Amino acid sequence: MNKKILIYDNTIREASQRAGISLTPSDRIAIAEMLDGMGVDFIEGGLAGGSPRDDVFYREMQSRLLKHAKLVSFGSTVRPGTPVNDDPMLQALLDTGTEYVAVFGKASSFHAKEILGITEEENLKIISDTVSYLTARGRKVFFDAEQFFDGYVESPEYAVKCIRAAHEAGAFTIVLCDTNGGTLPFRVAEIMDEVLEACPEIAGKLGIHAHNDSGTADYATVEAVRHGASVCQVTLNGWGERCGNANLFTVVPVLQLKLGYDCIPDTQPLYNYAHACCETANIKMFEFAPFVGRNAFSHKAGVHADAVSKSSRSYEHVSPEKVGNSRNVMVSEQSGKAAVTVKLRKLLPGIELDKGKAAVITEKVKSLELLGYTFEGADASLEMLVRELLGIRRNWFRMSSYKVIVFGESDEKGIYESKTNEIIKSREALMPTAGAMVDVAVDSEQEITAANGIGPVDALDKALRKALSRFYPEIAKMHLVDYKVRVLESRLATASVVRVVIESSDGHDTWCTVGVSGDIIKASFDALCDSYDYMLENLSAGGD
Amino acid sequence: MNKKILIYDNTIREASQRAGISLTPSDRIAIAEMLDGMGVDFIEGGLAGGSPRDDVFYREMQSRLLKHAKLVSFGSTVRPGTPVNDDPMLQALLDTGTEYVAVFGKASSFHAKEILGITEEENLKIISDTVSYLTARGRKVFFDAEQFFDGYVESPEYAVKCIRAAHEAGAFTIVLCDTNGGTLPFRVAEIMDEVLEACPEIAGKLGIHAHNDSGTADYATVEAVRHGASVCQVTLNGWGERCGNANLFTVVPVLQLKLGYDCIPDTQPLYNYAHACCETANIKMFEFAPFVGRNAFSHKAGVHADAVSKSSRSYEHVSPEKVGNSRNVMVSEQSGKAAVTVKLRKLLPGIELDKGKAAVITEKVKSLELLGYTFEGADASLEMLVRELLGIRRNWFRMSSYKVIVFGESDEKGIYESKTNEIIKSREALMPTAGAMVDVAVDSEQEITAANGIGPVDALDKALRKALSRFYPEIAKMHLVDYKVRVLESRLATASVVRVVIESSDGHDTWCTVGVSGDIIKASFDALCDSYDYMLENLSAGGD
Repeated sequence: MNKKILIYDNTIREASQRAGISLTPSDRIAIAEMLDGMGVDFIEGGLAGGSPRDDVFYREMQSRLLKHAKLVSFGSTVRPGTPVNDDPMLQALLDTGTEYVAVFGKASSFHAKEILGITEEENLKIISDTVSYLTARGRKVFFDAEQFFDGYVESPEYAVKCIRAAHEAGAFTIVLCDTNGGTLPFRVAEIMDEVLEACPEIAGKLGIHAHNDSGTADYATVEAVRHGASVCQVTLNGWGERCGNANLFTVVPVLQLKLGYDCIPDTQPLYNYAHACCETANIKMFEFAPFVGRNAFSHKAGVHADAVSKSSRSYEHVSPEKVGNSRNVMVSEQSGKAAVTVKLRKLLPGIELDKGKAAVITEKVKSLELLGYTFEGADASLEMLVRELLGIRRNWFRMSSYKVIVFGESDEKGIYESKTNEIIKSREALMPTAGAMVDVAVDSEQEITAANGIGPVDALDKALRKALSRFYPEIAKMHLVDYKVRVLESRLATASVVRVVIESSDGHDTWCTVGVSGDIIKASFDALCDSYDYMLENLSAGGD
Repeated sequence: MNKKILIYDNTIREASQRAGISLTPSDRIAIAEMLDGMGVDFIEGGLAGGSPRDDVFYREMQSRLLKHAKLVSFGSTVRPGTPVNDDPMLQALLDTGTEYVAVFGKASSFHAKEILGITEEENLKIISDTVSYLTARGRKVFFDAEQFFDGYVESPEYAVKCIRAAHEAGAFTIVLCDTNGGTLPFRVAEIMDEVLEACPEIAGKLGIHAHNDSGTADYATVEAVRHGASVCQVTLNGWGERCGNANLFTVVPVLQLKLGYDCIPDTQPLYNYAHACCETANIKMFEFAPFVGRNAFSHKAGVHADAVSKSSRSYEHVSPEKVGNSRNVMVSEQSGKAAVTVKLRKLLPGIELDKGKAAVITEKVKSLELLGYTFEGADASLEMLVRELLGIRRNWFRMSSYKVIVFGESDEKGIYESKTNEIIKSREALMPTAGAMVDVAVDSEQEITAANGIGPVDALDKALRKALSRFYPEIAKMHLVDYKVRVLESRLATASVVRVVIESSDGHDTWCTVGVSGDIIKASFDALCDSYDYMLENLSAGGD
């Protein structure tokens, strides 16, 4: 049996401290359910009583059943000078009704004196009183020893006294926190060893909470486990304040797949969860993340792609399937013909490519990439390009022209007041701000039509769809899932080249197309046309 | 004296293997000059003779003088079965004219046999012949022992034989490569110790090349140095294949600021270089990167922001100034009034804020952020908002309406053929594809005017500028530096809410403004108006 390591997730609390992330109560519930689905052991909420969002979350969770994980409510040690049974924060912690609670307290003499303004002894009493009070009320208490590693460097004796106070008061686990993220892994390992030598009675009750300010949060967590920690605090994708926290999607695969610990029932769903939680937090997944990044197993260089096809062991330290990821040979400027042929065989399995054709396609891909195209994430556009070059792209429709008109007005009220009203209005009543006219032909029949939309791209999409539906009613099944804009050569600012990538779905499959132009509308238009073409092509190929 | 560690940069070769990066010869020269400016010791180019881009780079560099760094040309050991003086790759290496050259060769029995299809003995001879041939021609040779760590696990004896062969043939440095990125730092340390025990004569001649597939490239590099490596191979921002390489901007600060090694003359310019090289590679800087990310020292949580203002030591492991970064208290949903007040004091130093006003501003910021605004990176918009709320925003101009028309046509040629022609056309001849009409008033004077542009935003910008120049000729000095689009709630695709952030400059200062709307044109328009307003406000404030 492999040694069990408990995985404790801080995402709900820490991610909201990251620039650019803001989680609503329903986002938090979605995240808790994902973590439970992954088989994480503990899920921490936000600061109990800290804000209405936090309270709504704890209240909602009371009626929800987690399959595996335990919810942990989070708070702080009692305020200096307040009796424990009079402290509103501790009351809020108890009110959440969770069996497990976490409280943070100072494990540094400097912090007790300079930040809290109390003596070392007063700080020890605060820790002890808080933990005793909560355990006496049936709670299992995680004590987060804030600033532990910095505190240990100042005074090993005092830092150890703090965690011993928590232990003696009945804490379930003592979490050693590298709050500033400045402790390098070899120091984490040394200090863990010294702590366990000083307090052998604490063995089996230690956790680790690491920050990434030195780029070592993940590995510091791994070293802590190798030196006796049995609880790892992590967050989804490492989201957290400043440079982030230890990343669940790195720490768990390293511990479980590379070092043989037992963390979660199965690592195979991790790739999907890593991407799904980005959707919930509404931020872009980091494509280069170890294990679960879209490019974690991407091979671009000709020589490497070639070797990987000979033996995957040569350039992959674990098998991508173990985390639900897959090997990806990218078609790009650096690719040789071998990589293009591998890719095309996957895209168009029925079609034989001779060497001459593969060379023509490789050259074309390279020249389009020089102009700003990228086919790495736009397989549907690549397929359309290849069909065109092979002479097997059917002309489903021809566009002869489009016009888009966008209109805006300002009123005389306070500028931000009016902005606010408009956003609320456009979201709720979805008032159109643009109109598009398109001129489409299928065989010899022409259709000129128009539609309004929220902004120019939406109007254009609606008009195109309307015109094409006359000929291909199945187009109605299709909808756009995502729309991304990338400004290339942004030093030219508004007159720069723009790349648009559109993700579309027919409710069953999804596909991505790309458009590039100096004009954002034209780039969007090209990506939309490729997407319609792709759907029509694959509907007909599927024969259904 | 601190121990000198040589910094060897692989960016030019490795970054092009990363999805989404493609470096032109002039990008490569710009990167080499930045690396030289930082005081890096060695700069590696691309594969000598590998592509026209690589050759242009080496040719161009012959006429340029590096102040500090040495250029290293890169190639491989001789091809199996080819005599060294007949190998076009080795010839290409010699032709670059650099004193230092790097050659990669296999340090694994498995790779020699399975990938190259040769015997162990033949592989040793290839290494030895290649290194001897190059040293005999006056070159200083880095031998990159590819797959060294995996090879060592298969057979320590054979892996050591490979590096000994390179050493005995006169290699300047032997670089141990963790090609698959799967070796954890504690294993790197153990293996380094064992290698130095087996070949003490190699001490002082070892380098390290780590990949980030386990999330540990940076720290594996640090551990290698702690265990005897004197050359670190790194790349700018860790750019490299799959999950990337060891990151110069993490490894150098950790070694130099935290462990006391001597790597480069000064770490203070690192922040600027980290951002400048992103401009060159035309990718977005990772905001959460340790040391040099924009948010590396950002404090968002109320309690932390408060503690940092009491003592920066409490939440910062190194001083941000040491790498040219700065502490940043973000104004955001989670901020308390204290954070807002600190921020505003920096933005509007002359203005006293009482508690009531600070509360009103905090509330407004929070409600706008709920709608999709972000002021974290748009200080100029924040200033305009605060001026409005305090009643000190002057109405420099009033917009009553705008209309934008975008027109597009398709021709009957091959779709990608015509796309290509259009992009080339729009870049070179800058043919307008949109027209904008604006209606502006300053005091009681109205100006209605119009302009064409490449795409709707460019047309709108030109028309606005033209209209305002009549009243404020100094507007002509201003230009847009960057234009970024972020689709929020992208699940609604083209009808989703869009955030536009614009960076503007008057040739001296730069500032950022933000606009949010369901309509990309309206969002751009709002950000443009804020930017003009900000410039006019600060021109008048500056009095020049």
